[in-house]
Formats: sequence, structure tokens, C-alpha cells
Amino acid sequence: MLSYTVIGTGAVGGYYGGRLAQANHTVRFLARSDYEYIRHNGLTVQSVKGDFHLSNVEVYKDSTDIPHSDVILISLKTTENVFLKELLRPIVKKGTILCVLQNGLGIESELHQEFPESIIVGAMCFICSQKAGPGIVKHLDFGHITIAAYDSSGLSSVKTLQREFDKAMIQTKIAETLGEARWRKLLWNIPYNGLSVVLNADTAQIMSLPASRGLVRELMEEVVNAASACGHPIGEDSIEAMLNNTDRMTPYAPSMKLDYENGRPMEIEYMYSNPIDAAGSAGYSMIRTEMLANLLLFKDRVKAEPV
Amino acid sequence: MLSYTVIGTGAVGGYYGGRLAQANHTVRFLARSDYEYIRHNGLTVQSVKGDFHLSNVEVYKDSTDIPHSDVILISLKTTENVFLKELLRPIVKKGTILCVLQNGLGIESELHQEFPESIIVGAMCFICSQKAGPGIVKHLDFGHITIAAYDSSGLSSVKTLQREFDKAMIQTKIAETLGEARWRKLLWNIPYNGLSVVLNADTAQIMSLPASRGLVRELMEEVVNAASACGHPIGEDSIEAMLNNTDRMTPYAPSMKLDYENGRPMEIEYMYSNPIDAAGSAGYSMIRTEMLANLLLFKDRVKAEPV
Repeated sequence: MLSYTVIGTGAVGGYYGGRLAQANHTVRFLARSDYEYIRHNGLTVQSVKGDFHLSNVEVYKDSTDIPHSDVILISLKTTENVFLKELLRPIVKKGTILCVLQNGLGIESELHQEFPESIIVGAMCFICSQKAGPGIVKHLDFGHITIAAYDSSGLSSVKTLQREFDKAMIQTKIAETLGEARWRKLLWNIPYNGLSVVLNADTAQIMSLPASRGLVRELMEEVVNAASACGHPIGEDSIEAMLNNTDRMTPYAPSMKLDYENGRPMEIEYMYSNPIDAAGSAGYSMIRTEMLANLLLFKDRVKAEPV
Repeated sequence: MLSYTVIGTGAVGGYYGGRLAQANHTVRFLARSDYEYIRHNGLTVQSVKGDFHLSNVEVYKDSTDIPHSDVILISLKTTENVFLKELLRPIVKKGTILCVLQNGLGIESELHQEFPESIIVGAMCFICSQKAGPGIVKHLDFGHITIAAYDSSGLSSVKTLQREFDKAMIQTKIAETLGEARWRKLLWNIPYNGLSVVLNADTAQIMSLPASRGLVRELMEEVVNAASACGHPIGEDSIEAMLNNTDRMTPYAPSMKLDYENGRPMEIEYMYSNPIDAAGSAGYSMIRTEMLANLLLFKDRVKAEPV
């Protein structure tokens, strides 16, 4: 049984770390704002699959205090990735599995450059969850993960993770190539996150009107074209499937909308700028995605500091 | 001296009609919501060029009551153009000059089709003005008009109008071709009106950040390309000039932002859809402009009727 450290105990890290702890894994949680609360009150997960509470949680305020774990689940917001390497340095050893639960493109290669002796795994989380309060995660829908090795050094690790995750009620699928899996995730994230902020709307509202539904489709077409230009053809038919899935979803405010509403910075760099740059380097211009990113950059900046 | 009827006594019609009345022209105003107020209290213009008040205003509630005038100034919001033909039918005679002070593309050709015996003139108003209350127009900046004949039948009329406008403190310029003048106006209207709504920002805020300033420039480039595709080359250098002019402007909330904030429908059809369609027919796709239009269509619809 592997031991785990969760970097970032929020809607994603709290849920998956909680599931692993519930399945009797040693799980260490790094928490900042919720540290005191969790230390005294534990962690509560209100889940569509059944609520549970962990009363004795191994929680840390400072990553230097965390004992060595086999796996580090990285579930910070990417807007905090400027601090990530520093947080990881004291706890990453040769062979440590770094499992990236974040959204966006380019995180794994940055980590590989910084920690070449670690094993890097990307995890695409398909989950509707929110932090409902200190130490409280609300799990609304879905929850499955697609995992993929960054390079061949991680091939056996993804199998081990799949086995352990499955036993912890976390449904997993292994993707052959990380790049394709990351772009497939962007197929949803790029249209819905950005439009939910710019239109101040949830998924159901976005899908309900032809003007916005058409924008979703056009943005998805750009993602498909960009992925293809980057060597990861994901197929036009994925668009229709994802539109249909979203139609069936409970109306949902994507994480970027919640970040914006709560005055937190938005994950524009990894979710928009990096894919736009990658596609651009491969000769494809994501015109609408870039326009959406610029609208978000304006809103992000003005929210932080009115102009 | 020509007589005038103003259809739509708002920020634009109230100002220009007011100037003509101040210069002793017979001016008849059609007003709806402000009819009673203006009838009793007259019309007030608070202008950067000096305030004035007209106490005896010839105001009408119903266009069928308006005596024949030589010139009809059309200054309704284009969102009310569905009623325009009906309003005009009783008052347009052979040779009546229809002077369109509205924004957007395609209005003159619609009027020409409906009233082939009238003389049609387009007027591009470069003015910052707002309705400050019933019967009160606030004139903040600029005020000049570019006028252009729809076809050769209007060539002498534009000269007459120029002469009369000039005497009424309305600075005018005659443009050779209406199409080019309309597209030049769109060069400002398309970026600033839409972005001011989507970003909830005035011109100065839009210009202050690289992300939004870049969007303005990209949208302007689309307008230049579209105009060129439609046979009206307006020159890339116009972009730099217009950016510089806007930098020097008093921070300004474009009319579409005021419409949106006040729950009025936005002028999307003539300002966005018609130019997009015209460019499309000429083989050019205004990708970003169309995206902006779709964002606006969503916001317009949701404001009118939440989804």
C-alpha cells in the first residue's frame, strides 16, 4: 500500500485524498488556511456517493514537516504553481511519484525539468466538487480520473495507482498518451470555464441559448484543431459527445467561475496561455480561445486591482 | 431654411434637433416616454459647448400628427427599427430627405427599398452624449457629423444639410461614399461598444490594459479587412489614429453599455450582425467580431429574460 501526500486540500485534493484515507491509506494533507480547522475537526466530504468524515487527519502547515510519501498528489490551483517547486523540494526523493491533478497544459514537463529523478503522472479529474467551508468538500457529480504517465518511467506506476484508486472508490482509466488526455480535458475546460466567467452563467445557461452554445462548439473545434496540430488527434466526434454529456450534467459553475466570484486569481496561464502557445508553435492559431483568454486576463487583473 | 422632424428625442436626436431649433429652424420632435415632460417643460441641453434650453418645443406623441417637414432626422435606437417604417409612412413624401443618424450597416438600403422616392442621407455622428433625464440631454464631448448621400439623388441635399448644420453649431464633413463612412464609424463602434459590455468597462479602462487594448486592435483589423472585402478600403493607418483619439477622449461609457445597464436591448443587429453578414457575403469572416456578437446576444437575451 502506497503512502500519499496531498498538496492543496481543496475541492479536488480534499476529495481524492479523503477517499484514499477512507480506504486506509496513510494520507498526509498540506493545508494552509484550513490547517487549524482540519487539525481539530478533521475533514468532511459531502458526496453524492455517500458522505463521510475523517476525524483523525494527518495535516501539515509546512511541507518541510511532511514525512516521505510514495506519492504526492498535486492539487493546488495552478495559479499557485510559482510556489510549487519550493513546496515540493524538501519532499521529493528519487522515485517519488508526482501525480498532477491540476488542469491545463505544461505542468508535467515543468516538474520533470525540476525533479528529473521523480516519476511523473498526469491525472485528469472529471469531477464536480466545491469547497463548501473549512475542511468541508462538497462532491456534486462524477469523480473519475484518467491517468497517464509523463514518460515510460511511469508506466508501472500508473497501473499501481489505478489499482489503489479503484479500491478507494476512485474510478480510473489509463490513457496511452498524456498529451492526448490533457487536450481532451481542455476540450471541456477551455469553453466552459472561460465562458462561465465572461457570461456569468452556469453550464446549463450556456447550453440553453444558440449564441453561447455555438461559441462552445467553435471553441471546441479550435481545441480539436490545436490538439491535432500538436500531434494529438482527438477526433471531431468528441465534440458532439462532450456537448451531450454537458447537456446531461447537473447545472454546474466551473471552478474558474467560483475562483472569479470569490476574488481568487483565475487559472488562465495553464488552461489558456500554454495551450495557445503550444498550438501557435505547431502552426495553429486558436483565435477565439485567445480572445477568450484576453477577456479573462482583463477581468482577472481588474478584479485584483481596479483600473 | 429647411424644416425638420426628429424621430427619437434621445441623446442624439435631442442634441442635434435642439441645435437646429436653437438656430431658428422649425423642428418637430417625436417623443414617446418624454412627451408630456417636454411638452410642459421644454428641452434642456447641457453641453460642453454651452448649455441651452428650449422652452417652446413642437413635440408629438404620434407621427401621424406631424406636419410635413423637409428633412426627417432618424435617431431612434436601431433596436426600434421594426417600428420605423410604420412611423415614417405617414410623413414621408416624394423628395423628403431621410437623414439616418443611427449606427450600423444596412439601414439606408432598407429605407430606400421602402421609400424609393425619398432622398436618403447617412449621417455618422461622432458625439459623446447621454440622456440625463426626461427632456434633458447631456453633451459630453465632440459632436461633429460626417454626412454622405445614399445615391446620386442625395448629392445636392448633403450640401444643403452641411450649410444648415454648420450654421447650427453642428460641424459637418461630407464623405464621398456612404459605405466607406459607415465602415469607418464601425471601426470605433464594433470594438468599444461590445467590449464595454462584456468587460463592464469604460473606454479608458479598456485602453489601460494590454489584453483589452490588444483586443480592440484585433477587432479594428477585422473591420478594416471586412470594409476592404466589401469594396471600401479604409487604410490600416486609421487604426492607429483611432486608438490615439480614444486615448485622448474623456473616459466614456459607449451607448451599448448604457443600454445594457439600463435594461434596454442592445443594437447588435445593425452594429454587428449586418457587418458580419456583409463581410461574409464578400468572402471575409469576422471571427472575433462574431464571437463578440455572440457574447452580446447571450447577455442581451438573458437580461431580457433570465435562463
